Amino acid sequence: MNYNKIFSKISRQLNKTEDTGEVATYIPELGNVDPTKFGVHLTTINQQHYHFGDSEEKFSIQSIAKVLALVLAYKQEGEKLWERVGVEPSGTSFNSLFQLEFSKGIPRNPLINSGALVISDILVGYLKNPKNDFIAFVRSISGNSDIDYCSRIAESEKLTGFRNAALINLMKSFGNIKNDIDVVLDFYFNLCSIEMTCKELSQTFLFLAAYGVNPHTNERVISISKSKRVNAIMQTCGFYDEAGEFTFKVGLPGKSGVGGGIVAILPQKYSIAVWSPRLNKKGNSSKGIKFLELFTTETEISIF
Amino acid sequence: MNYNKIFSKISRQLNKTEDTGEVATYIPELGNVDPTKFGVHLTTINQQHYHFGDSEEKFSIQSIAKVLALVLAYKQEGEKLWERVGVEPSGTSFNSLFQLEFSKGIPRNPLINSGALVISDILVGYLKNPKNDFIAFVRSISGNSDIDYCSRIAESEKLTGFRNAALINLMKSFGNIKNDIDVVLDFYFNLCSIEMTCKELSQTFLFLAAYGVNPHTNERVISISKSKRVNAIMQTCGFYDEAGEFTFKVGLPGKSGVGGGIVAILPQKYSIAVWSPRLNKKGNSSKGIKFLELFTTETEISIF
Amino acid sequence: MNYNKIFSKISRQLNKTEDTGEVATYIPELGNVDPTKFGVHLTTINQQHYHFGDSEEKFSIQSIAKVLALVLAYKQEGEKLWERVGVEPSGTSFNSLFQLEFSKGIPRNPLINSGALVISDILVGYLKNPKNDFIAFVRSISGNSDIDYCSRIAESEKLTGFRNAALINLMKSFGNIKNDIDVVLDFYFNLCSIEMTCKELSQTFLFLAAYGVNPHTNERVISISKSKRVNAIMQTCGFYDEAGEFTFKVGLPGKSGVGGGIVAILPQKYSIAVWSPRLNKKGNSSKGIKFLELFTTETEISIF
Amino acid sequence: MNYNKIFSKISRQLNKTEDTGEVATYIPELGNVDPTKFGVHLTTINQQHYHFGDSEEKFSIQSIAKVLALVLAYKQEGEKLWERVGVEPSGTSFNSLFQLEFSKGIPRNPLINSGALVISDILVGYLKNPKNDFIAFVRSISGNSDIDYCSRIAESEKLTGFRNAALINLMKSFGNIKNDIDVVLDFYFNLCSIEMTCKELSQTFLFLAAYGVNPHTNERVISISKSKRVNAIMQTCGFYDEAGEFTFKVGLPGKSGVGGGIVAILPQKYSIAVWSPRLNKKGNSSKGIKFLELFTTETEISIF
Repeated sequence: MNYNKIFSKISRQLNKTEDTGEVATYIPELGNVDPTKFGVHLTTINQQHYHFGDSEEKFSIQSIAKVLALVLAYKQEGEKLWERVGVEPSGTSFNSLFQLEFSKGIPRNPLINSGALVISDILVGYLKNPKNDFIAFVRSISGNSDIDYCSRIAESEKLTGFRNAALINLMKSFGNIKNDIDVVLDFYFNLCSIEMTCKELSQTFLFLAAYGVNPHTNERVISISKSKRVNAIMQTCGFYDEAGEFTFKVGLPGKSGVGGGIVAILPQKYSIAVWSPRLNKKGNSSKGIKFLELFTTETEISIF
Repeated sequence: MNYNKIFSKISRQLNKTEDTGEVATYIPELGNVDPTKFGVHLTTINQQHYHFGDSEEKFSIQSIAKVLALVLAYKQEGEKLWERVGVEPSGTSFNSLFQLEFSKGIPRNPLINSGALVISDILVGYLKNPKNDFIAFVRSISGNSDIDYCSRIAESEKLTGFRNAALINLMKSFGNIKNDIDVVLDFYFNLCSIEMTCKELSQTFLFLAAYGVNPHTNERVISISKSKRVNAIMQTCGFYDEAGEFTFKVGLPGKSGVGGGIVAILPQKYSIAVWSPRLNKKGNSSKGIKFLELFTTETEISIF
Repeated sequence: MNYNKIFSKISRQLNKTEDTGEVATYIPELGNVDPTKFGVHLTTINQQHYHFGDSEEKFSIQSIAKVLALVLAYKQEGEKLWERVGVEPSGTSFNSLFQLEFSKGIPRNPLINSGALVISDILVGYLKNPKNDFIAFVRSISGNSDIDYCSRIAESEKLTGFRNAALINLMKSFGNIKNDIDVVLDFYFNLCSIEMTCKELSQTFLFLAAYGVNPHTNERVISISKSKRVNAIMQTCGFYDEAGEFTFKVGLPGKSGVGGGIVAILPQKYSIAVWSPRLNKKGNSSKGIKFLELFTTETEISIF
Repeated sequence: MNYNKIFSKISRQLNKTEDTGEVATYIPELGNVDPTKFGVHLTTINQQHYHFGDSEEKFSIQSIAKVLALVLAYKQEGEKLWERVGVEPSGTSFNSLFQLEFSKGIPRNPLINSGALVISDILVGYLKNPKNDFIAFVRSISGNSDIDYCSRIAESEKLTGFRNAALINLMKSFGNIKNDIDVVLDFYFNLCSIEMTCKELSQTFLFLAAYGVNPHTNERVISISKSKRVNAIMQTCGFYDEAGEFTFKVGLPGKSGVGGGIVAILPQKYSIAVWSPRLNKKGNSSKGIKFLELFTTETEISIF
């Protein structure tokens, strides 16, 4: 299928309607991004590439990195991981602290902040040099040694991260954080500061479309079963309080970040990354979601 | 693939472990069922049949019927349906009334009780003879004119249905119920009283594996897009507070009922119905879920 | 103390600021009231009377009647009453259904709607002719045989009372309502429809300032201990989500109604009733609260 | 009235029933206390003293100190204090974080942990040497220069205070904490570590029974109006989720601490302090509450 043609067609279509969301501004580094940026990159499991717009420009992948942290922790811990974090969608965002209290410090899933903090605690616990080892892992699955943290963004997050500090302290009070809070938060804020282009993001997630095998190296990252289960978690939990809507409209497992990026995969077929900084009210890229909805409608293929 | 062999194999495997759940007992009609019953029936979109155990015995499909009500209402209302009900998973069950209050009477999705009550209100509003017309619709998509309500069960539900009365009154106070409460509740309790065998249930849901076309008649029930979206809703909302777990372990869109039935579909491939009356703590068939988990593991095919 | 002078002084003071609240409009009978009405009546335990403004005009006492229902049920049941209803303030009003669910159908206190429905259920259960017997009790403690229900208001409440129907159905599902729901609701809506003048209201509550003895007849209504405890409940629970504020600013046990009435008592001294139909955002008479705040400031006497 | 005789009588009565609560054990310093300790001390506004049992033994007053911090902050800030903290009871304790989130970081009242943290933030903001200045204030109103913090307890609290860290971080994320979190927490943990005997505690709170005047020095601590309002807040918010129950049974404004102490005042009459380390399920001294209930029953005087 000639995806490039479809990209152009959808882009023309989207340009007819105003892009109404707001760029995230809680840290200056995100607020300074040009809101009109738009890029998309699709990599097939046969390593064919299709792209459109600003697809080679770096942006902050933010929460998308939580999936990569989950993969590494799951690979290490296996199914006993689920004693410390659930696999259920989180319901309305406003009651995140309430749910955490009700479940005695066990987060609903690994892709909300509390869950990613537990995953960070696990990685900090067993990685020798947590930040170095984690970025090395990301570089290996992406086949790209340039990928890195953005220390400026990590610092900014730290200065405003009181809500995350509230979450981790609450979990610590329930015994579900084992390491020093400051160390875990430092790892977590770095995790969320990773920068990629659409092309890099698409390539990095391709192993999840390929049943856990890294197509760049033909090495297995995680088992078939685990890679399917990570996809399942992205499906039900990848878009905060809009996971149902994304599943309903797009029909692909995926994950969004407040930097405006979205990555989604079609098992056995492709990995696609979109970037558009304006966010809708649920905190997901407004144009990105519309693009993907039109894309699966146009190609007539989703997982359903 | 010879599914019959796989059924036997899994069944032997499951017989080695105790089935620990409890049969639903809130109405006597459900409590009287033999808890050791177990049946499974798979229908491929090419109309091949595979079955095992008590697959031709009738049981109360309960909440599974909510999907059929959704299909009929969606067919009629189109996308404006979503002004009155959402498509998001519901989070923890204990706060259902709270969420309904917070969202000013708009249920999170059409597969929880509050959502199915809104769907019932819609059907009562436009069907001439709601109960007759609805069962006629179910019979047509199942290709089976024997399927019927169980009036004894509907009556029993009515006598103990105070919680549903609380939900519908709360929604009425927000203006999201248009018809008389007693009429809607009567329709709803009948809806949940429908009885089918595993074979009938599997055949009834086959159109959702076939992109909306009824394989028995080759007539289109709903559009491709709508049928995919119904599957998406089953995926994120079909198992109450265990939707994530089912997606994670089984990886198929499906729906459960407190009668112990589960139906699931693999798009373009098959529809499978399982029945085992013992329920786990989340109210889903305990053995049914384990069976389906082993089934998609054994066949190595899920939507992920 | 010459309370009449103080009344005039405070009234002049209040007339300088705009009365900003809104009259309750959920039923037409309440919405039609002249919002500028203002009356006050104080009765001392020595039966001296002080009044100002529209103090002899009837208005709907609404929730204020819940205290009288509590008194009658408490007199009958004694301390075992508290097995079915608590004595704690209710917190934010928006989570009333949530709290009721969390406490398995036991209302936080007898002065919120759910609690008054349980009290109504108790009265319906043991009174021979519930509505007749209850109004007879109210007449006896008020020393006034004219006091009556307003059937027009009771009917109107019934037509819009879906939220109360939600509450009572939820409690019935937990087994905390013993009688037929429709019968209890009918009693409850009548209870809330009682009409009194400020003078009548002040006289009716005087026994709570007199340690449980009816000053009109010198007969004991309830024991000293019970009358103090009813005062205590009014103190912590009498003003919905504004009970703390009223205690803080006015410092007297009291109860408000959405008809714009407030009654408050100073033990061993007096009972005072105020009426002004405009309500603040918490549903209490805006001018009524301000009046009482200035009154206890001016007289320099509160329970604290 | 000869209070000593009443103390003996009640004590004999209480000794007949088992004291069933549990001593607080979340820090070792509290867990090591002899659970059978029991003391009471009453000081009248005429400076007469009555006491019983271990009334001259020091114990950790814990949350009781929150009232003293409130008094000092209220004295300084006046009514604008209430822009940052409410005066309403908090409802069920399990949803404290939820309420704080819902109210965008404004605590329900100054006597729950979140509210006391805001009060601490205010004191840290304007006191030159917060810890020194505060203890000097406490010493002045108690007329006792021996009263001091217990640094061992403060340190222990700090090591386990993750839940308080969660609360303060959440409030900081909403902008309701102005100073450095660690400085405020240090002040707060010291505040809660103050030790007093029953005699000292009773004398320290006597000014709240005397309309704001320190009876030891005849100096005014706070205005009449403010002292009444502090009493009102103790009445509705002094006993966590048991404030209604205490008001109902005892009928005096008061405050409890997890060290097993309770102080209560009868305006114009006396201040009474009780100490018994075993706590009931709501975290209040089990025997202490029973003692005070019997005391106001026996003396037949409460504020109601």
